[in-house]
Amino acid sequence: MYSVSELKSLFDTYVESQKFRDEPVNLFEPMNYILELGGKRLRPVIALMSFNIFCNEVEKALPMAFSLELFHNFTLAHDDIMDNADLRRGKPTMHAKYSVNTGILSGDAMMMYAFHYLNLSSSDDRIQRKLNSLFTRTAIEVCVGQQMDMDFESMQQVELDNYLLMIKYKTAVLLAGCLQTGAILSNAADSDADALYEFGINLGLAFQIQDDLLDLYSDHSFGKVRGGDILQNKKTYLYLTALEEADQVTKQKLLTLYQTKTLSDQDKVNEVENIFNQLNVKKLAEKAVQKYTEASFVQLNILSVSADRLKVLRSLAEELLQRTY
Amino acid sequence: MYSVSELKSLFDTYVESQKFRDEPVNLFEPMNYILELGGKRLRPVIALMSFNIFCNEVEKALPMAFSLELFHNFTLAHDDIMDNADLRRGKPTMHAKYSVNTGILSGDAMMMYAFHYLNLSSSDDRIQRKLNSLFTRTAIEVCVGQQMDMDFESMQQVELDNYLLMIKYKTAVLLAGCLQTGAILSNAADSDADALYEFGINLGLAFQIQDDLLDLYSDHSFGKVRGGDILQNKKTYLYLTALEEADQVTKQKLLTLYQTKTLSDQDKVNEVENIFNQLNVKKLAEKAVQKYTEASFVQLNILSVSADRLKVLRSLAEELLQRTY
Repeated sequence: MYSVSELKSLFDTYVESQKFRDEPVNLFEPMNYILELGGKRLRPVIALMSFNIFCNEVEKALPMAFSLELFHNFTLAHDDIMDNADLRRGKPTMHAKYSVNTGILSGDAMMMYAFHYLNLSSSDDRIQRKLNSLFTRTAIEVCVGQQMDMDFESMQQVELDNYLLMIKYKTAVLLAGCLQTGAILSNAADSDADALYEFGINLGLAFQIQDDLLDLYSDHSFGKVRGGDILQNKKTYLYLTALEEADQVTKQKLLTLYQTKTLSDQDKVNEVENIFNQLNVKKLAEKAVQKYTEASFVQLNILSVSADRLKVLRSLAEELLQRTY
Repeated sequence: MYSVSELKSLFDTYVESQKFRDEPVNLFEPMNYILELGGKRLRPVIALMSFNIFCNEVEKALPMAFSLELFHNFTLAHDDIMDNADLRRGKPTMHAKYSVNTGILSGDAMMMYAFHYLNLSSSDDRIQRKLNSLFTRTAIEVCVGQQMDMDFESMQQVELDNYLLMIKYKTAVLLAGCLQTGAILSNAADSDADALYEFGINLGLAFQIQDDLLDLYSDHSFGKVRGGDILQNKKTYLYLTALEEADQVTKQKLLTLYQTKTLSDQDKVNEVENIFNQLNVKKLAEKAVQKYTEASFVQLNILSVSADRLKVLRSLAEELLQRTY
C-alpha cells in the first residue's frame, strides 16, 4: 500500500503530465495557475487512499482523482468571487489575478474538465454510471451548501442543526464523495463504499467544528489573527452553541456584540470569548468533535477489509483531527 | 411522427412536471425563473426531433432534452453576467433580477442538474457513456467559444476563419450536439448520428451568418434598431468580410468608423453600409449562408432513413434559414 506522501507525489506527477488545450490562452492559463497553487490536494489523495484499500493499481484511479481536484478548484474559483476573497494560500485568487469574467468562465471550464476526467475513470460502463451519479449528486449538494452559507450571512440567528446541514453540504459531502468514489472505482462492495461515505461525512463534520475551535483557541503564532471568525461576525459552531445555551440577557449581549462597531478588535474577541467561557462553549464543541470522530471510526470497523489496510486512512484522519491548539 | 409544436408542447409539459429541491429557495427559485422565461426551446425540440427520426417513443428522450435546455440556460445565466446584459427576451436577466452571486451559483446548479438529467437519459450503460462523452466535449467547446468571443472584443481585427471557429464553438456545436444526442439515444447507427452532427454544424454556421445579415438588412419594423451590431462595433461576418475585401484606404476608413464617437447613429450605420455595398459584402455573406445551408442538406441525404422521416427537420431548418429580410 502507498503512504500519503507517495500518493500525493503520484498525483502531482499525473497532474503535471496533463495538458488542457493550448487555445484560447485566456481560458486555460488561469486554470493552470490555480492548479499550480497546489495546496494540500487532500481530496484526490483521500480518493486514491480509499481506492488503495481495495486495489493496489492506484494509477488506474488517477483520472478520477484529478476530476475531484478539478471540481474542488472550480468551487474555489466561484466561491472566491461570491465571498469577495482576493487571496488564497497567500496568492491572488483567480478573479483577483485576472478578472471576474475569467473567474466565472475558467471556473466553468474546470467544471467541464472535471466531468471529462470523470468520464475517463472506468472502462466498466456500470461502474462509470455509478460514479457519474454520485459525482452529480455531490456537486448539487455542494452548491446547496454554498447557498446556505451565503443565506446565513444575512440571518441574525441560525439553528445549530441547520449549521450542521450547511457544513455537511459545503464540506463533508465532497470528502465523503471522494472516499466513496475511490471505493466504487475499485469495485468494492456497496456496503464498504457506503461505510466509507459515512466515515467521510462524520470526519468532515468533526473537522469543520475543529476548525471553528482552532480559530479562537489555537496558538496563533503563525500570523493568523486569533478570533478572526468573531471579527468577521461568522456564525460558527461556537457562536451558535452559545446562542442556544444562553439566557435571554446573555443572548442579547452576544447579538449586540456581533453588531457593534465601537469596540477594538481585541476587546471584541475578549468579550465574546468571555461569554463563550461562561457558557462552556469550548467544552461543548470539543464534545461534538469527539462525537463525530467516534461516529466516523465506527464506520471503519464495519468495513470488510483487514485493519492493516486501513492504517493509512486512519492515521490521516487522526492527523486531520488532532491539529493541536 | 411528431410536429414541431407537438414536441414543444410535450417538452413544456415535462419541464413543468419537474421539481428541483424546495430548499434553499434562493438557489432554486432563480432557476425556475429563467426556465419559465421559456423562449423557443429550440435546442431540446431539435434533440427530440432527431430522436424521433429513429424512434417514435419520444417521451423516453425527455430527460435528455431537459438536460440540454438546462445546459443552454446555464450558459445564458453566466454569459449575461460576462456580457453585462440586463435584459433577455424583454425580462431582467438572472443576475439583474437577483444578484451576480445568484447568477453564478444558480447558474452552476443548473449545470449540475443538466448532468443529473443527462445521467437519467438511457438505461443502456453503453449509450449513456457515449452521451456523457459527447455532452462534456460540447460543454468544453461552448466555453472555448465564449472565451474567443470575449477575446475578439479587445482585438482590432479578427481573421474570418477565426470568426467562423468562434461561432462554430459558441453556437453550432450545441445545435449539432443536440442532434447527435437525439440520434445516439435512439440507438441510431454511428454514421447517422455523425451526419446529423455535421448537419447541425453547418446549419449553425449558416444561421449565425444569416443573423449578422438580418441585423442590417432586415425590415426592422418591430422596434429593433437597424445596424445594432455596427453601433456596438461588433465584429460580424459582414464587417470582417469587408476588412478582408477592402483596399488599404477603405480598410482604414472602416477601422476609423468603428472607433468614431462623433457621428450620429444613423450616419454611422449609413457610412458603414456604404462601404459594405461598395465591397459587395451582402452578396458574399449570402453566398456563405448558401454554402453552409447546402452543406447541411447534403448531410441529410447521407442518412439511412426515408426522406419522409426527415420532413419535419428539413422544414424547421428551412424556416430557421429563410427568415426574410
